[in-house]
Amino acid sequence: MENKKFKFKVIHEDKNSDARLGEIITPHGKINTPVFCPVGTRATVKAMTPEELRDIGVQIILGNTYHLYLRPGIDVIERAGGLHKFMHWKEPILTDSGGYQVFSLNQTFKIVKDGVEFKSIIDGSKHFFSPQKVIELQKRMGSDIMMMLDEPVSPDSDYGYTKLAMIRTLDWARMSINSVGDYPGALFGIIQGGMYDDLRKECSQRMLELNFDGYSIGGLSIGEPRELTFELTEKTVNEIPKEKTRYFMGLGDPEGIIKAVSMGVDIFDCVLATRIARNGVAITYEGKLNIKNFRYKIDFNPLMHDCNCYCCKNYSRAYIRHLYISNEILASRLLTTHNLHFMVNLMGEIRKKIKEGKLSEIKKKFDGYVWKKNI
Amino acid sequence: MENKKFKFKVIHEDKNSDARLGEIITPHGKINTPVFCPVGTRATVKAMTPEELRDIGVQIILGNTYHLYLRPGIDVIERAGGLHKFMHWKEPILTDSGGYQVFSLNQTFKIVKDGVEFKSIIDGSKHFFSPQKVIELQKRMGSDIMMMLDEPVSPDSDYGYTKLAMIRTLDWARMSINSVGDYPGALFGIIQGGMYDDLRKECSQRMLELNFDGYSIGGLSIGEPRELTFELTEKTVNEIPKEKTRYFMGLGDPEGIIKAVSMGVDIFDCVLATRIARNGVAITYEGKLNIKNFRYKIDFNPLMHDCNCYCCKNYSRAYIRHLYISNEILASRLLTTHNLHFMVNLMGEIRKKIKEGKLSEIKKKFDGYVWKKNI
Repeated sequence: MENKKFKFKVIHEDKNSDARLGEIITPHGKINTPVFCPVGTRATVKAMTPEELRDIGVQIILGNTYHLYLRPGIDVIERAGGLHKFMHWKEPILTDSGGYQVFSLNQTFKIVKDGVEFKSIIDGSKHFFSPQKVIELQKRMGSDIMMMLDEPVSPDSDYGYTKLAMIRTLDWARMSINSVGDYPGALFGIIQGGMYDDLRKECSQRMLELNFDGYSIGGLSIGEPRELTFELTEKTVNEIPKEKTRYFMGLGDPEGIIKAVSMGVDIFDCVLATRIARNGVAITYEGKLNIKNFRYKIDFNPLMHDCNCYCCKNYSRAYIRHLYISNEILASRLLTTHNLHFMVNLMGEIRKKIKEGKLSEIKKKFDGYVWKKNI
Repeated sequence: MENKKFKFKVIHEDKNSDARLGEIITPHGKINTPVFCPVGTRATVKAMTPEELRDIGVQIILGNTYHLYLRPGIDVIERAGGLHKFMHWKEPILTDSGGYQVFSLNQTFKIVKDGVEFKSIIDGSKHFFSPQKVIELQKRMGSDIMMMLDEPVSPDSDYGYTKLAMIRTLDWARMSINSVGDYPGALFGIIQGGMYDDLRKECSQRMLELNFDGYSIGGLSIGEPRELTFELTEKTVNEIPKEKTRYFMGLGDPEGIIKAVSMGVDIFDCVLATRIARNGVAITYEGKLNIKNFRYKIDFNPLMHDCNCYCCKNYSRAYIRHLYISNEILASRLLTTHNLHFMVNLMGEIRKKIKEGKLSEIKKKFDGYVWKKNI
């Protein structure tokens, strides 16, 4: 434990909400929170170079243990000197446990004693993940913030099964924490309990007893009604002491992030911004701009006015539409650049407003903001 | 003609070969020759930004009139303020006439009086190109170096048809040159005549009478034996006066370029470097490196040793192989970066060696260089 380089401290608390500014120290540098963490599934944030991410202001990226374990294999990454060196990213990396992919991508997983068997989505080969093993894999990659193996359940799971999965997750939590050793990076516990208040509360309390470096809010924003998402988020956050980092896994829409920030969440990740970019959709303050729309054929405006991103400073909607329709790689690059810039810039604005005690202003900016609105 | 901004001058002649160093002035700046011109078919050099091309040292790119005419349409490009503004490239642009695509991509072209009818490869719609029209299209895009409409023939065309096509090309040449007006960019004549010495000679002489700004060597490197390519190249080049720019259309392999340079050719373009990059192939001094090869799975060397490109300075073969196999966009970006850097760097080396009177050294470097060799 003496080797631990992970530290978190709250540096400012909002008077008008539960939002806070924080600072995370990791083996690969400092992160200012609240922060948005782009997803780099296969050792690359799709379409982007590390330099471009840094220019945009990205502070931390996420790597997917499941995908990297299957391809290129953790041995390749380890021999490269770790994930940072392999992919030429020098800043912090958060890795998930692989559990979510095992349970969601595979029709054929099987929970066995102390772990889960599954088949590769690539070639159907058989594999086994245990709580200890996924920690080992993440350590070998040199992760700055590791996740424990958990069993997520679907939002319509009944009370009995949800409880069973929660208990198993708690068992796995104990095994995980015992596997960390003197590793310098952090390990986060994941709070499950599905849609049930009392189970989430119980899970939170028992996770807290294990004293993880931080806590992830799991099993939310996976298809349940949005009001319930934030009702349960607020309750879960309130269980986690202020001195612990709070991470909402998989939440990535601007309105949702602002809500969760005001409840005291520090870290967010989501594929949304990068995935919709590759499908020709730009995030703007007016809604989602679908570049395929015919109306943009001779529109020489940037994707979004008053945007300082590389894409908006240099290219028009007409040009990006042309690239997209012509299947040009540059379309994905430019749209991803804009969307990530939007998210990173939003987080910067959020941090600024928290400091000024004016978070409500940014909330107002998104009042009536219909995320699903297409322009 | 007073408005003409195109100028070419030979600034150094090699004592040991017919190679020369030249300087081209265009409305969008200066080009040092011999030069390699990457292909930006659809208003983008695939996978690259203009800034990246500049960083590599690219001096001029090529745009395809046929593709841009069909999509997004010349009206869109014109309303954007021309091709340079549309695609955010500030340096010179060479455009082809579209003729090659009409004759090679369409099974259904029809030569009619003073032009050619063809169907769109996108939607089958009917279109018509005349010598005047393709000049008009190139002028509207703001091309720095335009090409005339010509009729290329396949290398196995008989004498009669080849002569017919040559005569038609000469007729079109006259119509083309009369369409230039006071446009500041250049117009190049294209020398055809297939595989027949006397026809190529006749074509050259009659093209020269029209006094084009420069001359393209057409109808070569399209499938004929390689020895014949260079035999005819030499003869054609020798017909073109020294004070005129010479452009070998579609030649892009390093060995071939060095040969043609030593015969006095100034400009080259080819999709090869960028296309094979997207197919996972890197150009190296040892041959073509196929990144899909299993041997590169745990190879942490750069694509090519002693290469200063962004890709080789920061990434390993193992990582690029992983990206390529995972279908990641970054694979195309990195391989394209390396291959274009290789080509641009090769041209820089060639210019340096011409200046030093040591072009043979670079020729020697490629002696026994088997382009088709896979490593």
